[in-house]
Amino acid sequence: MQSIENNACSVHFNENCYTSLNKLLKKNSFSSIFCLVDTNSSQYCLPIFLEKLSTTIKIEIIEIGSGEIFKTIETCSEVWKALSDLGADRKSLLINIGGGVVTDLGGFVASTFKRGIAYVNVPTTLLAMVDASVGGKTGVDLDGLKNQVGVISNGEMVLIDSVFLNTLPANQLKSGYAEILKHGLIDDINYWKLVSNFKSTKFNEIDEIIYQSVLIKNKVVLEDPYENGLRKVLNFGHTLGHAIETYFINSTNLGELLHGEAIVIGMIMESFISNKLKMLTYEDLKTISQSLIEIYGKVSISREYESDIISLLKFDKKNSHGNINFVLLNGIGKPKIDCNVPENLIKEAFKFYNDF
Amino acid sequence: MQSIENNACSVHFNENCYTSLNKLLKKNSFSSIFCLVDTNSSQYCLPIFLEKLSTTIKIEIIEIGSGEIFKTIETCSEVWKALSDLGADRKSLLINIGGGVVTDLGGFVASTFKRGIAYVNVPTTLLAMVDASVGGKTGVDLDGLKNQVGVISNGEMVLIDSVFLNTLPANQLKSGYAEILKHGLIDDINYWKLVSNFKSTKFNEIDEIIYQSVLIKNKVVLEDPYENGLRKVLNFGHTLGHAIETYFINSTNLGELLHGEAIVIGMIMESFISNKLKMLTYEDLKTISQSLIEIYGKVSISREYESDIISLLKFDKKNSHGNINFVLLNGIGKPKIDCNVPENLIKEAFKFYNDF
Repeated sequence: MQSIENNACSVHFNENCYTSLNKLLKKNSFSSIFCLVDTNSSQYCLPIFLEKLSTTIKIEIIEIGSGEIFKTIETCSEVWKALSDLGADRKSLLINIGGGVVTDLGGFVASTFKRGIAYVNVPTTLLAMVDASVGGKTGVDLDGLKNQVGVISNGEMVLIDSVFLNTLPANQLKSGYAEILKHGLIDDINYWKLVSNFKSTKFNEIDEIIYQSVLIKNKVVLEDPYENGLRKVLNFGHTLGHAIETYFINSTNLGELLHGEAIVIGMIMESFISNKLKMLTYEDLKTISQSLIEIYGKVSISREYESDIISLLKFDKKNSHGNINFVLLNGIGKPKIDCNVPENLIKEAFKFYNDF
Repeated sequence: MQSIENNACSVHFNENCYTSLNKLLKKNSFSSIFCLVDTNSSQYCLPIFLEKLSTTIKIEIIEIGSGEIFKTIETCSEVWKALSDLGADRKSLLINIGGGVVTDLGGFVASTFKRGIAYVNVPTTLLAMVDASVGGKTGVDLDGLKNQVGVISNGEMVLIDSVFLNTLPANQLKSGYAEILKHGLIDDINYWKLVSNFKSTKFNEIDEIIYQSVLIKNKVVLEDPYENGLRKVLNFGHTLGHAIETYFINSTNLGELLHGEAIVIGMIMESFISNKLKMLTYEDLKTISQSLIEIYGKVSISREYESDIISLLKFDKKNSHGNINFVLLNGIGKPKIDCNVPENLIKEAFKFYNDF
């Protein structure tokens, strides 16, 4: 499978991953290599990865806890200190092997350690492959608010080997698939038709689907790396989705809600708002909602959470001047950024989702 | 006094500071303004600054503790949280008013809050005016190791108003002056001759001296923003100086040693090493040592600290592959980067300084 290469980043797939990485190691005289993993990727992915690595440079492993609750500045401090204690210098390389938490946090740690060292992302979840690892967004949460602290920076390369998906639980796979569905909704109705037909998607098609999704994400990011305009389309479903995800993370009595599962709710609610603002036909809203609920089922969002979730919206990075900005759909594949939405429509969207 | 402007940064002086800032505020529609100060600059500088500001935008003040011990990631967390709680968004502006701790930390906080907001540096100490605030280095210390975490980024502008120096204690003024002396040693023998004649320097010449120093620093930084080569010359005196400074900060029983005071010791010791390696004449070594000790006096560095200070050298950001790299002098105004120095010469340098 061909690599995707441009000024901002280079993404290599499957068999090309290791030849590209080994070439990089040969070309650059890194003083040492550090692999950042979490408890999961340490067990399931690291052995596979290390076997393919061909180098005589000293390799050290740094392990962090698994899950969004570890995506904090405190974890960063631990990793910075581990790097420091293990003698990392400006010529060291950090390889981040894991899901979005590891690649987001690891990218931030590398970009800020001694004012920046080289890093490579090896996403091992579907979500990280099609979303987190491409586009240069790095960062961590702050007091439960998602991605409040971070930088835009691109590592040396992203290596996507779908072999790692074999070790991924089904709910995690589906969580990542939500971003793929989003790529269809914001960019390409034909791609949406293909991927929303989830039941018929065969596992051996996943390589091609990942490739298409990375192409879409990459195209958008290249045109607007710092999210001044176009790139915001990637936030479709994420304004409400992030707030719902944050609310669930901060509530100890609610069950686990994965990122993609929250984004799916966000996409349904934001499609509803698009319809209410006469941008999306009811037909399309129905198709979107039915397809998504067929794959993901429904999560009960009690009316009593609504006001807390809405107040979380104001912390969203995408907002400024006190306005809440949404990405809405002018039709499937036709996103519109910077849409201001009155609060009563947001409340109606909760009702629509719950009653659908 | 003319502004210094280029791709990387723009520095405005005295009367031009406020017209330039007010122009920026008019041009950009910032959603809110945050002033970061420490306990000192809050009392002595903020009132002067606010009086000159002409805007109707809401201004919030965030205050941190004063001194290098607060230059930590924990302080960053407090500032990030304050920004978040006070409703800062991507269109907010952070104005850092204070010494190097405030501008370094504030620049890092701004560059990483919601993946980067605009900021302006208003250095209020001589050290920050001629060094910290220009060149895009931002960051904080980690476990007592200086500037281990940070990014290279340039704010919107740097405003240097020498009126703030009126409130600065004499030892702080002299600490900043050490960087001015360094600029002479690494760039221009005539400038060195002028500024090393400290006794004859009149206070009303300080504006011109600051201007010259910013010009020198700026020239160096422009040619090598990411410190791959030339920029390293700015580290003259800093390899040993940083280690000595760190050792004093971490030792509760030793007196206070300001940054510039530590750098002066570093410059004398590194001049000694330059002489031992047949790069600098003994005549020049004597001139440098005498001039610096005449201004700064001598600090007792007991032989028992030596090995700890030497072991701190290996954490210096400037080192890689386990080597300790020095900037040495091939003569006054003629620096040479990446010089490897054997450990016994470093020990001899301690002896030279103590016996001089």
